[in-house]
Amino acid sequence: MNIKIEKLIKQFAKLPRVGTRAATRIVISLLQDKTGKSEALAHALIDATEHIHPCSQCGVLTDNEYCEYCMDVSRKNGQLCLVRDFSDVLVLEKSGVFHGRYHVLGGMLSGTDGITPNDLNIANISARVEKENINEIIFALPNTVEGKTTQQYIISVINNKDVSFSELASGVPLGGDLDYIDDGTLTLAFGGRKKL
Amino acid sequence: MNIKIEKLIKQFAKLPRVGTRAATRIVISLLQDKTGKSEALAHALIDATEHIHPCSQCGVLTDNEYCEYCMDVSRKNGQLCLVRDFSDVLVLEKSGVFHGRYHVLGGMLSGTDGITPNDLNIANISARVEKENINEIIFALPNTVEGKTTQQYIISVINNKDVSFSELASGVPLGGDLDYIDDGTLTLAFGGRKKL
Repeated sequence: MNIKIEKLIKQFAKLPRVGTRAATRIVISLLQDKTGKSEALAHALIDATEHIHPCSQCGVLTDNEYCEYCMDVSRKNGQLCLVRDFSDVLVLEKSGVFHGRYHVLGGMLSGTDGITPNDLNIANISARVEKENINEIIFALPNTVEGKTTQQYIISVINNKDVSFSELASGVPLGGDLDYIDDGTLTLAFGGRKKL
Repeated sequence: MNIKIEKLIKQFAKLPRVGTRAATRIVISLLQDKTGKSEALAHALIDATEHIHPCSQCGVLTDNEYCEYCMDVSRKNGQLCLVRDFSDVLVLEKSGVFHGRYHVLGGMLSGTDGITPNDLNIANISARVEKENINEIIFALPNTVEGKTTQQYIISVINNKDVSFSELASGVPLGGDLDYIDDGTLTLAFGGRKKL
């Protein structure tokens, strides 16, 4: 195959959820397209890469110093929702379930992957708690060992007795058939069962 | 969401096999990446878009006037394999089943989509047949109504009694369970059954 095409396919195949086969299909469609899709994509990429960076307060991606959620005066103060990455903010915003402030950690602590507190956006949580009068920290982290470890670590470093901590409930998802639920989730759902 | 990020997600979501959810995941991973993946992708895109075009003889994508298959003197002459697009050439090359010459049509005739012979790379097939002493045209087109229509049309315009035509066999794929095969394929497989 032509070396330039091969190089482009390899670049696309490195993206999440895109394998070599999908990358090949994408590249061929871009190179056969006559409407300028390819140039438009390249320019949008360069533009975004040059101007987008994490919000200096919460870590949400933005092209300003502070992101739209930090700047929005209509959002509720006092509650700080901790998430793993920016895509989680989008999921929560789409659901409309939360109207407070966000804080993006940028990953989870992990011994196996060598991710330490210094690699994550943890250091300034305490300062935000003081400055923004946060009274509740809500952990909306992945329900995994890494998520729980990160949560425990953050609780241990936030030395402020006016702050309460909470985490999202574990259990059977809405419409979830018990046949398809793993044992860990079932155990949590049983342990947290509600009286009717 | 930030407008530059939204724009980039929309560009990715237009690609084949990429929906909005996958596009969001791709864009966030690119914008959070610190290894220059995003710039590398943008530059590979611009480089390929500027230099890649269809081979002036067969339509395979290349950065030269003639593609690697047309230039390859070790390939067999006399057989011309007609395919819908460049990705089909890659599939056939990977299988190693064909060693002759290719001709990429760039699509299929379609009344519903308004695709006429003038939209496809059909006009120069006759000239190639003369010039390259083609004695067999092999149709490796999609096994669909459009594929068969295109095939019939091409047979009708190649006015050369020294050329024979063939098409790929229809039937049950290797390892194909009859449970999962559609009725049309089954009918073809029955009609073309082989004596043992």
